[in-house]
Amino acid sequence: MKKIDHIGIAVKDLTVSNVLFEKLLGVSPYKQEEVESEGVITSFFKSDTNKIELLASAHENSVIAKFIEKKGEGIHHIAFEVDDIQHEMERLKKEGFDVLNENPKKGADNKLVVFLHPKSTNGVLIELCQTIKEL
Amino acid sequence: MKKIDHIGIAVKDLTVSNVLFEKLLGVSPYKQEEVESEGVITSFFKSDTNKIELLASAHENSVIAKFIEKKGEGIHHIAFEVDDIQHEMERLKKEGFDVLNENPKKGADNKLVVFLHPKSTNGVLIELCQTIKEL
Repeated sequence: MKKIDHIGIAVKDLTVSNVLFEKLLGVSPYKQEEVESEGVITSFFKSDTNKIELLASAHENSVIAKFIEKKGEGIHHIAFEVDDIQHEMERLKKEGFDVLNENPKKGADNKLVVFLHPKSTNGVLIELCQTIKEL
Repeated sequence: MKKIDHIGIAVKDLTVSNVLFEKLLGVSPYKQEEVESEGVITSFFKSDTNKIELLASAHENSVIAKFIEKKGEGIHHIAFEVDDIQHEMERLKKEGFDVLNENPKKGADNKLVVFLHPKSTNGVLIELCQTIKEL
């Protein structure tokens, strides 16, 4: 685990929340990106060496729609940057953490990502992410 | 808002969770500190330029005990470091955020802290913190 890459926050309305977080953080979002496989539209803000990722649902059956229905808007996950996601997955499995994905998948922001089940991490949804290097 | 200082995570049993987060992050907690006014015992881990703060309840009426009773263990707040907490409080009030404290109070880790009500921040409890300088 190199560092916290970003904190993901589930929001109902990305336009409204972009304005809110711009006021809060004092900076504008620097990019917006849809992750079709997850049914989410994301918006990113820089905060020093970290990012804040707003996550809005692209359709009513997405994981974010279900999260908001169950828990309301709020913090969804913490993402840690890793150098070698396969190695870190294996290490964490051996330590008893419940890795939700068999293999890393393509997430937002040019990353390979996997998640750890919150039941094994004190109720915190943890994402591991590794930047996809250009060949 | 200079940067994310720490992420606060509510836990039931600090001893158990210290072991869990040591396995997760690959580092040991570097300090433990009780904040009597809040009824919490905290434990800190470094993660690059950020910190993870575990928060356990010191008694059954603390805000952390109530949080866990209502929502379970999990992420409790995000704390942003600021240079001038009074100035930032005034700025955010003018922007329409609901600042929960009239005046900054002494928190853990040698900080002056105030909180923003989650109703004004997309369900995210935000802490502002300023390091107390020695005179």
